[in-house]
Amino acid sequence: MRPLFSSPLHVVNIGIPSFSEDMHKQGAKAVQLQWTPPAGGNIELLEMLHKLEHDLVDEANNQAVERIMSADPVLCDVAAALEAIPGMTSHTILHAGPPIAYADMCGAMKGAVAGALIYEGLAEDAQAADQLAASGAITFAPCNEYGAVGPMAGIISASMPVHIIRNNKGGNLSFATINEGLGKVLRFGAHDQEVIDRLRLIRDVIGPTLKEIIKDNPIELKTITAQALHMGDECHNRNKAASALFLRALSGAFMRFPDRRAAQQTLDFIAANDHYFLNLSMAASKCALDTANGIDHSTIVTVMSRNGVEFGIRISSLPGQWFTGPAAMVKGLLFPGFTDSDCNPDLGDSAITETMGIGGFAMAASPAIVQFVGGTVSDALNYSRSMYAITTAENSTFSLPPLDFRGSALGIDVRKVIASGILPIINTGIAHRLPGLGQVGAGLVNPPMLCFEKALAALVQAVIINTR
Amino acid sequence: MRPLFSSPLHVVNIGIPSFSEDMHKQGAKAVQLQWTPPAGGNIELLEMLHKLEHDLVDEANNQAVERIMSADPVLCDVAAALEAIPGMTSHTILHAGPPIAYADMCGAMKGAVAGALIYEGLAEDAQAADQLAASGAITFAPCNEYGAVGPMAGIISASMPVHIIRNNKGGNLSFATINEGLGKVLRFGAHDQEVIDRLRLIRDVIGPTLKEIIKDNPIELKTITAQALHMGDECHNRNKAASALFLRALSGAFMRFPDRRAAQQTLDFIAANDHYFLNLSMAASKCALDTANGIDHSTIVTVMSRNGVEFGIRISSLPGQWFTGPAAMVKGLLFPGFTDSDCNPDLGDSAITETMGIGGFAMAASPAIVQFVGGTVSDALNYSRSMYAITTAENSTFSLPPLDFRGSALGIDVRKVIASGILPIINTGIAHRLPGLGQVGAGLVNPPMLCFEKALAALVQAVIINTR
Repeated sequence: MRPLFSSPLHVVNIGIPSFSEDMHKQGAKAVQLQWTPPAGGNIELLEMLHKLEHDLVDEANNQAVERIMSADPVLCDVAAALEAIPGMTSHTILHAGPPIAYADMCGAMKGAVAGALIYEGLAEDAQAADQLAASGAITFAPCNEYGAVGPMAGIISASMPVHIIRNNKGGNLSFATINEGLGKVLRFGAHDQEVIDRLRLIRDVIGPTLKEIIKDNPIELKTITAQALHMGDECHNRNKAASALFLRALSGAFMRFPDRRAAQQTLDFIAANDHYFLNLSMAASKCALDTANGIDHSTIVTVMSRNGVEFGIRISSLPGQWFTGPAAMVKGLLFPGFTDSDCNPDLGDSAITETMGIGGFAMAASPAIVQFVGGTVSDALNYSRSMYAITTAENSTFSLPPLDFRGSALGIDVRKVIASGILPIINTGIAHRLPGLGQVGAGLVNPPMLCFEKALAALVQAVIINTR
Repeated sequence: MRPLFSSPLHVVNIGIPSFSEDMHKQGAKAVQLQWTPPAGGNIELLEMLHKLEHDLVDEANNQAVERIMSADPVLCDVAAALEAIPGMTSHTILHAGPPIAYADMCGAMKGAVAGALIYEGLAEDAQAADQLAASGAITFAPCNEYGAVGPMAGIISASMPVHIIRNNKGGNLSFATINEGLGKVLRFGAHDQEVIDRLRLIRDVIGPTLKEIIKDNPIELKTITAQALHMGDECHNRNKAASALFLRALSGAFMRFPDRRAAQQTLDFIAANDHYFLNLSMAASKCALDTANGIDHSTIVTVMSRNGVEFGIRISSLPGQWFTGPAAMVKGLLFPGFTDSDCNPDLGDSAITETMGIGGFAMAASPAIVQFVGGTVSDALNYSRSMYAITTAENSTFSLPPLDFRGSALGIDVRKVIASGILPIINTGIAHRLPGLGQVGAGLVNPPMLCFEKALAALVQAVIINTR
């Protein structure tokens, strides 16, 4: 023992940091190892993780990410939701996130439902809409259960035109509405006359014109996203480059469109909206991720989505099931005049982009996004880096220049989230918690760990693999 | 002395690294200070630098960068060079770089001269053009002496349409041709029928249509550049975002243009060219930098330019003078099938962008550029960082997101270049050294130090400041 006490000590501390802090106070050096026990040391979770350590799971997950990466989503048509989306009816309203009864919806979503019912001519005003929605005459269902995705409240009603995205490698379809722009818009719960008028312009002019133009000019969305990631977009809250590239790709067709006035209105509408591509980015992500549904043994997340009350995820090998937990408050930058008490919890299907490895996962490609969602450029790089710990693959098609062109982190593995304690990072808009008021800011948020814990338990039940 | 020899040594070595390497070999620690003596220890240069250490110089330089930063270049018109550029004649040919006689021009520039003479109907073919050019009947002059700038060979002849850029804060004008696109193009010395036909399309359709559209829709170029720097462009060799934003800004006007066919052709031409904005980026830089000409005592560089044989710079307080040295070979990535022996030395007026603090100086904003010019992302960041050592100001209008939105380095100070030994970094295309063959690659290059040494000597003569 004598040498130990007579020579300088080199201390490494694992665990409670105050031990190494005490060493520092006494003038000694101690290295604090950044380490936490797997699954936070929770024995029950560790046993479940152990049961899912199996080649079959790894193989299934590899197959899932291969399918997702090889999908080729193409915008091929635009049509009214009633025509385009299987199962849609004139009295169906699709919404963001996991299932929720009308009575339980947050203010922003109720406001958007009211707007949709007024727009459809099913209600005269917000009060009548509220009564109708509560009456049971309207069928509410998650967009994600209909192959669709919607930003924020995510409301889709029968006559709204939707982009139709087709996977050229498999044929599955996905759907998303036409982005309304910023300001007072339905997706943030606003529903005054300005909002309804814009929805009618979209229904009567923008949608039909785009339909004619798109049918002769299908647009490969993966290529645009890949380019935009080299142009400062992360393709969730920053879509400026992607929107400009999309407009450019169609500009020639607009020039040649016979109905000059309709073409002008439609092009002006797209050109004025830096977020136009958001809905396409989401639908392309949905189209690709849907190819990974129903792969036995896979622990890959195929949907992350929020209804403003609950956060829900879906898992490849457990199709049709939702695993939910309470939606968190978003931390970020609020527009002038708003405070935390104005903010609705996390809302929208747009976390499908993070599920696809872009958005928050690709913030390294988008240093300029921190001006919108807060934080520093080095935070943005670190968010992207940290996602490799919870994912299965690096998607070389979506490369991130500031990380030396490393492929974005793809294929969230429930097991890795539980084991590492690292939650997916999502950047997102923030809606006002009351109906009718719209967006109040943007920021960063995580899913609740509870979603992943519930999914893990269900996976252990379902996968039924003999432990080694 | 005893404590020195009995206690552990902490060594800092300044100068020859082998001293500290020897320490390492003997198991001791030594810090090698990265330091070189000012001006490389050259006594003559140091004495000149000493003479220019004066408040009057600092004040003049601050005034120069203030003027440059407050300039507001707006694309306001398009017209034939003969009408637009003061002093232009039907037999004038403007070229890139400092003055050069026809006989001394590089192959790429001679090829472009031949193309221009054929295009203007002054010569039947390349051989006749060569004879005419050598006959003395053609006036050759640098673009930069006529308020103009041209990429690569930079050839401007009488009937070529030029963008006219006006500084809204001062009224001075600058000029640049319409970018032809990539491939076989005049600016890289190609001059076959395809090249001539394209120049005629530009003269007969693109230029006149743009003129009509621009006169009702002037475009603020500083705003586009500022946005593009947040979208992965550095606005010299990567102009993809800026070109898309430029197209978007004019798309509505194109839609409303009465001559449908001309509008379609022009829009298609712009939409197909990711480098369209290059010439506008150059002309906007020229327009801003020209405001700093003729400021007594200023040691700020207002032009950097190359004719393929010589590199030339001009200095604020020494208007009308060129300081030249031999143009270097560009180091970078060559297109398949080409080797170093195919490459022309550094060529073009496009280093006006670096003079303005973008291009190579803003590579930090453009990690994707390394796929075109070579090197790594961390090289790109370091190039931008190193330019602060030789410049006077940080231009907050042109902020670089990956450097935490630091303003780009603006106002190259001849004194700082000499003192630090750090040369401006330029990224650029590489032309074939023979006429008619076009581009062979892209890469990075520096000016020769000789330009700055000559400028320093002239500054000392001209400024005539009493030493302290």
